[in-house]
Amino acid sequence: MTASLGTLGPRIIDLAQRLAAFSDTRDGLSCTYLMPAHRAAASQLAEWMAAAGMTVEIDGVANVVGRYPAAQPDARTVMIGSHYDTVINAGNFDGRLGILTGLVAIEALNAAHRRLPFNIELVAFSEEEGVRFSAPYIGSSAVAGRFDFRLLERRDASGISLGEVISKSGHNPDEIPAIARDPRQLAGYLEVHIEQGPVLLGEGLPVGVVTAIAGAARYSVTVTGEAGHAGTVPMGLRHDAAAAAAEIVLFVERRCSGIPTLVGTVGRLQVPGGAMNVIPGRCELSLDIRAGDDGTRDAAIADVLAEIDLIAKRRGVRIEAKEMQRAPAVACSGRVQSLFADAIGRAGLPVRALPSGAGHDAVQFGHLTDMGMLFVRCGNGGISHSPLETMTAADADVAVHVLLDVLEHFQETR
Amino acid sequence: MTASLGTLGPRIIDLAQRLAAFSDTRDGLSCTYLMPAHRAAASQLAEWMAAAGMTVEIDGVANVVGRYPAAQPDARTVMIGSHYDTVINAGNFDGRLGILTGLVAIEALNAAHRRLPFNIELVAFSEEEGVRFSAPYIGSSAVAGRFDFRLLERRDASGISLGEVISKSGHNPDEIPAIARDPRQLAGYLEVHIEQGPVLLGEGLPVGVVTAIAGAARYSVTVTGEAGHAGTVPMGLRHDAAAAAAEIVLFVERRCSGIPTLVGTVGRLQVPGGAMNVIPGRCELSLDIRAGDDGTRDAAIADVLAEIDLIAKRRGVRIEAKEMQRAPAVACSGRVQSLFADAIGRAGLPVRALPSGAGHDAVQFGHLTDMGMLFVRCGNGGISHSPLETMTAADADVAVHVLLDVLEHFQETR
Repeated sequence: MTASLGTLGPRIIDLAQRLAAFSDTRDGLSCTYLMPAHRAAASQLAEWMAAAGMTVEIDGVANVVGRYPAAQPDARTVMIGSHYDTVINAGNFDGRLGILTGLVAIEALNAAHRRLPFNIELVAFSEEEGVRFSAPYIGSSAVAGRFDFRLLERRDASGISLGEVISKSGHNPDEIPAIARDPRQLAGYLEVHIEQGPVLLGEGLPVGVVTAIAGAARYSVTVTGEAGHAGTVPMGLRHDAAAAAAEIVLFVERRCSGIPTLVGTVGRLQVPGGAMNVIPGRCELSLDIRAGDDGTRDAAIADVLAEIDLIAKRRGVRIEAKEMQRAPAVACSGRVQSLFADAIGRAGLPVRALPSGAGHDAVQFGHLTDMGMLFVRCGNGGISHSPLETMTAADADVAVHVLLDVLEHFQETR
Repeated sequence: MTASLGTLGPRIIDLAQRLAAFSDTRDGLSCTYLMPAHRAAASQLAEWMAAAGMTVEIDGVANVVGRYPAAQPDARTVMIGSHYDTVINAGNFDGRLGILTGLVAIEALNAAHRRLPFNIELVAFSEEEGVRFSAPYIGSSAVAGRFDFRLLERRDASGISLGEVISKSGHNPDEIPAIARDPRQLAGYLEVHIEQGPVLLGEGLPVGVVTAIAGAARYSVTVTGEAGHAGTVPMGLRHDAAAAAAEIVLFVERRCSGIPTLVGTVGRLQVPGGAMNVIPGRCELSLDIRAGDDGTRDAAIADVLAEIDLIAKRRGVRIEAKEMQRAPAVACSGRVQSLFADAIGRAGLPVRALPSGAGHDAVQFGHLTDMGMLFVRCGNGGISHSPLETMTAADADVAVHVLLDVLEHFQETR
């Protein structure tokens, strides 16, 4: 295999740009599940995969699956995946980078007539962002055999159900069970993804090895104090819901600071119907806490909940914290982490291991097979889920060569 | 004059209840400017005033003005006033207490055929709350000769202008200049008002003497930080707008605590479009700071603005604080404060002096004549602007006897 350094990266950037032309909106990139732009993007991906020597199928939930066969017929399969749907007004690389890095790597293998001791399945997952049906991982959960069939009844903003949308696309929800892969046939799962944060950028590194995908614990918190006239209730007699909420915001920040991989965020914060001259009687906020391991996260949650109790008692307010979600962290396979680290080292680069704070399709495969992820530097301060998301061709080039190196060194251990 | 203690208070409570029957809504009390219920309430007040021996007029902005003549023809006038409009879903006493205490006092004087050395003008101001046209003091500003004629163009939620509303009521905006009183004819202005706060309740006192009406300084504050993914941006690299806002909320609370008469409130607080998994890039909040004197208030404002600058620098966020209002405090007349204090003492009660954090019609008269206010205990924790606002008949009884005593001792000093 003789891909020359420096041509594959620019091709990834170019393909990402061409794929971004398929959008629900005239300006910017919005590609949501089974809308016309999404179906056109799937066709384009299928065409590129076929041209790269893959047999291609678009499955019942609109995953685009390309198969690049192994040297021998009864080999197992290494899956390379990520998603082609996007958030509203997205960047070009979130999700797509992982598909296109796999595609360009296979193009290089195919150009060199190189077969590996395992099949490669390149899967462009149809849905990860959860935009249209408020349900993420529609594509990857089906492949992993973890699809939640109750979602077929869920309706989008226009009132059409997921099941109806799938039927109208020319498929049948009855096909979904057959999409699930037999884990015994899977040798591993690899995903390349833009970091969507500033860590690699801050350290001047093009790529990093993901150690684990953090599971978010999310709470919806409501503070109930006593409304009152801003001019007539002395400070000492107040039970101000917003002041209690402010203490929570700052405690979350303080508790989650200084501990590697731990992050805590109050993303929603609101005094409903607040007025300048009324002491807030109610304040609503959200809490999202994540860490590379569940122990670190759960210790932080316990401390935050204890502090919330103290704040409520001290201020004479009522605070309800309702758990909305508590997903476990999914560790990446040690073997695949080592493969990525070795490949990065062979590329002459320092190895940086870091957790993923965001969820990715890879979480669906952590319990099925050896799963691993490579993060690629996110430009522009680490901004993602935004048209301001950027990546350099040089970084994409490093990523595809690291991926090719991992594939070359991947030991089929069966 | 021989009003027996214990009958006047219950009459005030009863009249307040009867007046509350005129409401824009079937349930609860909402009486907004020149709506049918408001006009019916005015007619009822005029009827009660006439029955108490007053000559009555409803003026061009719908103030109900009752005149109880002095013993001699060329006497000056002591005005007793408060408003009969209400907020939406109001209590029975805010505003109305001051009118009805004056009415019941005059009923007592009239029943005893008692004339004083000055005329009494009882003015039920038509508008103080600012609900319909977002403009408070329509009634009292006209009487004080401070009416802002630009307001005639202002439109309510239905699109009709204040000028049109006045014309449709059978009056003419051209009458407004003539409503203004000649300050040389005014001997004083007295207003009895429910405290709308918990101070007297907390100290077990039925009434208190108002020292000054605080002027509010109000700011609209916008924090601009950097939005980001709640899972991917490490704590140390964040510029969280909500965390900066939380620091402001707690600084305002801390700075305004422990200093008599000073209060500071963040009533509006919101992350616009906030989402659980997004670090807030923007947070909006309001600031309302008041004190019994402008020096105390302005020192607090200066400290809050300085702290805002420090927070912005430390956190790398931008904070804009826009001044929306800065009304001066209006001091009550020392002579009238003494009259109220002496009357309270003669009633065998301790004298408690306290500032008013809320604005009242009285602010319009502070620069025209000797202005003073009596606060009456607000039950139920001090709640006002709410159907939960309460007052006892015993407290109303104390209030009317203190008012009668002040009238008996009011020296016509011309």
